[in-house]
Amino acid sequence: MEIKQYLNEQKTFIEEQMGHYMLEEGGPFARHIDAMRYSLFAGGKRIRPILCLTAAKVVGDNDLDIRDIVPVACALECIHTYSLIHDDLPAMDNDELRRGKPTNHVLYGEAQAILAGDGLLTWAFELISDRALGNLTAEQRLDICNIIAKAAGSSGMVGGQSLDILSENQDIDFDTLATIHRSKTGALITCSVLTGAIAGNATAKQFAALKEYGEALGLAFQIVDDLLNVTATTEKLGKAAGSDAARGKATYPAFFGVKETRNRAIAAVEKAIRSLAIFDKKAVPLRELATYIYTRSN
Amino acid sequence: MEIKQYLNEQKTFIEEQMGHYMLEEGGPFARHIDAMRYSLFAGGKRIRPILCLTAAKVVGDNDLDIRDIVPVACALECIHTYSLIHDDLPAMDNDELRRGKPTNHVLYGEAQAILAGDGLLTWAFELISDRALGNLTAEQRLDICNIIAKAAGSSGMVGGQSLDILSENQDIDFDTLATIHRSKTGALITCSVLTGAIAGNATAKQFAALKEYGEALGLAFQIVDDLLNVTATTEKLGKAAGSDAARGKATYPAFFGVKETRNRAIAAVEKAIRSLAIFDKKAVPLRELATYIYTRSN
Repeated sequence: MEIKQYLNEQKTFIEEQMGHYMLEEGGPFARHIDAMRYSLFAGGKRIRPILCLTAAKVVGDNDLDIRDIVPVACALECIHTYSLIHDDLPAMDNDELRRGKPTNHVLYGEAQAILAGDGLLTWAFELISDRALGNLTAEQRLDICNIIAKAAGSSGMVGGQSLDILSENQDIDFDTLATIHRSKTGALITCSVLTGAIAGNATAKQFAALKEYGEALGLAFQIVDDLLNVTATTEKLGKAAGSDAARGKATYPAFFGVKETRNRAIAAVEKAIRSLAIFDKKAVPLRELATYIYTRSN
Repeated sequence: MEIKQYLNEQKTFIEEQMGHYMLEEGGPFARHIDAMRYSLFAGGKRIRPILCLTAAKVVGDNDLDIRDIVPVACALECIHTYSLIHDDLPAMDNDELRRGKPTNHVLYGEAQAILAGDGLLTWAFELISDRALGNLTAEQRLDICNIIAKAAGSSGMVGGQSLDILSENQDIDFDTLATIHRSKTGALITCSVLTGAIAGNATAKQFAALKEYGEALGLAFQIVDDLLNVTATTEKLGKAAGSDAARGKATYPAFFGVKETRNRAIAAVEKAIRSLAIFDKKAVPLRELATYIYTRSN
């Protein structure tokens, strides 16, 4: 199967499932729920939930029921969406366009956008901890909850976003840029793969291989994002192109130029694929996904 | 023991424990961690963790080790603190003073204040889900995680804050005010009591009694807050007095006048105390706490 077809099918499946696992419209908090749903259903590649479900299939045995893992996959997308809503706020990146649509605060105002993000983050933990949803063990749920909190929190995504903002228009070294990338973007991508590994009862060896894969993939993903911000048009991106340079953000191309940045992206993709050597053909989608991420930059 | 002495001792204990269970200073995200620690250690009554630990003691048997529950108590205070940081933001209540000190965004800027809140919320779930901390069972941790997510999220605190802001300068009915109070403040207070109940292995009957207690206490707490905003001075409150009226917020005194509001606060306190009828003298601190909350308004 073509990777594009696989991604599209998975995306459709996940969006359908998110309809089941998101708060219903209406009730006393209808406006707040509308704001959350607006950003959650505004499109996106759904890469994180796809990584979660695909990793679970790679390590899972014949008893694996993917429906048990769907709430976790949806939770990951809720967390990713919350991070986009908060990143776009006037006090942060001040973006008015996301996926070709007005950002949350443009439509709902700053206060409601902050709360929509807060609500999505909290909802993610409600989904994962709900013992009535699916048949993961309590231990699996807890470990998934913990690994997501670590990746999304102050040593991961939130810490990275803080450092990213503090580093604007500063003369930062490459180590700082690497820390920002690893924490702000890499941590949740790696964690998405690992939640699938936990849900699929991965062995220690499988877990370690998927961790290496996730880290290399997260790096490739961020390098390509930096490249696209330099080389693509606003129309193609669905968000403002060239905004990194305009905000004085350090990026891979700013450190290494476009050509060397491409080489580093390729190296990260190759490392991701090598990490999967212990897996059979079930890991084909993960391998092809790594390559596909690079092709986005071309 | 006097309730004031009990509350002071518990407050000291919890603040000491929060020192253990909070992210350490320094490292690549030092500024972000400083911002979180600033608000977490800026004082406060620590009512939510005290309710959690006290409820656990009320229902727990002789095997109960309070140290197992401390991470949960600290998580509750992290969530309360995050809610204050976000509520104080310019886009929300725009408060510059909290507990007599500058609010988080005044010191750290809006972006870092939003992230400090995000970080504290996520840290709370990291603490609860960490199986290396204390000896609660995986099921207890999950149920605590779930009940906190429900209380803090879109059907609870976050939903209530959203509705509160949407209702400013609107002609809302009493039902809407009651919904705001129940969700914005009441839910997390009730939940604090119930996390203790879960950690102490409460029976269904004990759980129901503590739920009724928590709901009545939460109501009393919010009515008194409304009263204080009308009757106390800014100096005494440590935050802007009269700010509810200035912002066109509906309150109990605005609906019923000060005298009838006092009567309703007393009725809620009495209901809270009645709910505890099944418990022996271990519940004395919970009973006295309910009375104490009312005396704050005098």
